[in-house]
Amino acid sequence: MMQFNVVKNDENSSARSGQLVLTHGIIETPVFMPVGTQATVKTLTAEDLYEIGISIILANTYHLYLRPGEDLIYKAGGLHSFMNWRNNILTDSGGFQVFSLSKLRKITDEGVYFNSHIDGSKHFLTPEKVMDIEQKLGADIAMCFDECAPYPCTYEEAQTAVNRTTSWARRCKDAHHRNDQALFGIIQGNVFPDLRHLSALDLVEMDFAGYAIGGLSVGESKEEMYNILDLTDSLLPHDKPRYLMGVGTPEDLLEGVRRGIDMFDCVLPTRLARHGTAYTRTGKITVRNAAFADDFTPIDKDCSCYVCRNYSRAYIRHLLKAGEILALRLLSYHNVYFLVKLMENIRRSITEDDFSGFYYSFMKEYRF
Amino acid sequence: MMQFNVVKNDENSSARSGQLVLTHGIIETPVFMPVGTQATVKTLTAEDLYEIGISIILANTYHLYLRPGEDLIYKAGGLHSFMNWRNNILTDSGGFQVFSLSKLRKITDEGVYFNSHIDGSKHFLTPEKVMDIEQKLGADIAMCFDECAPYPCTYEEAQTAVNRTTSWARRCKDAHHRNDQALFGIIQGNVFPDLRHLSALDLVEMDFAGYAIGGLSVGESKEEMYNILDLTDSLLPHDKPRYLMGVGTPEDLLEGVRRGIDMFDCVLPTRLARHGTAYTRTGKITVRNAAFADDFTPIDKDCSCYVCRNYSRAYIRHLLKAGEILALRLLSYHNVYFLVKLMENIRRSITEDDFSGFYYSFMKEYRF
Repeated sequence: MMQFNVVKNDENSSARSGQLVLTHGIIETPVFMPVGTQATVKTLTAEDLYEIGISIILANTYHLYLRPGEDLIYKAGGLHSFMNWRNNILTDSGGFQVFSLSKLRKITDEGVYFNSHIDGSKHFLTPEKVMDIEQKLGADIAMCFDECAPYPCTYEEAQTAVNRTTSWARRCKDAHHRNDQALFGIIQGNVFPDLRHLSALDLVEMDFAGYAIGGLSVGESKEEMYNILDLTDSLLPHDKPRYLMGVGTPEDLLEGVRRGIDMFDCVLPTRLARHGTAYTRTGKITVRNAAFADDFTPIDKDCSCYVCRNYSRAYIRHLLKAGEILALRLLSYHNVYFLVKLMENIRRSITEDDFSGFYYSFMKEYRF
Repeated sequence: MMQFNVVKNDENSSARSGQLVLTHGIIETPVFMPVGTQATVKTLTAEDLYEIGISIILANTYHLYLRPGEDLIYKAGGLHSFMNWRNNILTDSGGFQVFSLSKLRKITDEGVYFNSHIDGSKHFLTPEKVMDIEQKLGADIAMCFDECAPYPCTYEEAQTAVNRTTSWARRCKDAHHRNDQALFGIIQGNVFPDLRHLSALDLVEMDFAGYAIGGLSVGESKEEMYNILDLTDSLLPHDKPRYLMGVGTPEDLLEGVRRGIDMFDCVLPTRLARHGTAYTRTGKITVRNAAFADDFTPIDKDCSCYVCRNYSRAYIRHLLKAGEILALRLLSYHNVYFLVKLMENIRRSITEDDFSGFYYSFMKEYRF
């Protein structure tokens, strides 16, 4: 079902490279997972993603549960078959979305009552129900149902969320039975070190296939986030994959890897693309800017992706100005490729004992 | 610059197969040209179009003149280079768009005054100006600037438009000097046979590289359209390509070919796609329909395109319901492929002396 091997540990930081072996292939870590919220990485086909080199994508349980429903996807033969994707998939638990997207009605120890953000319909999700949904979706990695406290919140609120997350993790483990699907626990605790500590130890005791750090990048300072990552790095077992949820700026990927993170996901590359923004080696550019009207060079001169090999800034700017969908497609492709290449370079630097060198040279050149 | 060879004439109709040799490759005729209004066939890349088998696309002079402007495209090295397209391009003259999209201010024998549909800015297009624009765009085929009378219109209105179109065609011919670009004349005359007759003879006398039939499929009955095509078929030289502008339903492609047409263009396949409609061998389907919710078969079981090989009706319906751009991309790809395959089958049937057989079997199975 799942195997994880650390191949190389960096000498100057907690960075490590490894291999995560899942039902649908081998994932070289650290890895960036593009987000396919509604069973599609927005604007891109499966073939685009293979071409970019994507070994795993994330899909959102909350969205797929509401539309088209887990039963339809099960009937299609599971999510891989439904969306025509032959590599790995991770489904989140829906926890974060229930708390951030839906109209929340009530949280009890039993589960969460909420109204759908699509049609207002009433729903009740429990750890058992979420496990049922995720097992029907049939991803290679499923996440435990968690309570994600907002930022900022009081210590007491964060504490309640941690306790519930721990109890729900236990119920998820009991309700989970698919042998071809790995189950990860999610560490909560907001920005409170002792709660993060407690959450991590409780989950590690339950012995999950992997551990995620949830509830970060939700408004807290970079320093607060990095402090929590330093802490979890010291608490989590070295032989299990660590996944930092919802994080994905180039700088945070580097900072996360440095603190022992193996997996990341983020909607940023595709969301930025849809707003006309592209990553380049020296920072983000707003392609719509007049400065690019007659710039016939590629989005990023150092990039060798399909888009940069074939299309110019001037052309993509024209498409954006003209409201053409192709612009969003080309920029999505490039932005996802950019992060995948960044991770590839990070992995190589770890293997070649030069992670620190890579880290500093990237940080020096990249304008935030 | 341009060569056209009729390879085979059908014995029972005016259908013919041929080869049109242009600067950017050979086009097998009869051919369907997808429309890339703003220098993009909506949602598709150049590679998608090569894969589908597109040898020529149409781009709109009116749109490109207004945005990004012909000078920018010239600076990029022409339209092929600007949009990264290595096969052929035909640019229309902007005549039809000036009369249908812009706020028309005044038509004189000299040219047309109008306001841009984008920002209301004032413009004046003459035959000479249009030739300047089209030569800067640098397509393989350019169209003469014409006046397209509305439907319905009076005989006198249609007559004025024909006279102007003839006089503008002469001025276009004088102003056109690019040797790597073929210039086609456009026959007008609305639904009045004697005006179509006059228009055709006047243009033929000027000896253009090819002849287009404009101002059809604008509201007249099918019978009126087919009558005009029968007439132009009898008047146009057999050794020059004939192009029916803006026409592209499957049935009209067949009826056009039957009346000696070699080239077609139409926005329908991509426009229908953006409205969630797909062509199938037995007629159009509205993919959004609830009936397809759990239909895991391809859009068209007889189709071997990328989309039909990989994605189901249920999945594409889900994408449409969820507002995902990928749905529009997949349906655009399939619909363009469908028409390209239809033309391929038409060509083969002509070559194999079975156009009538193909015509009747298609018409019998396809629900309009």
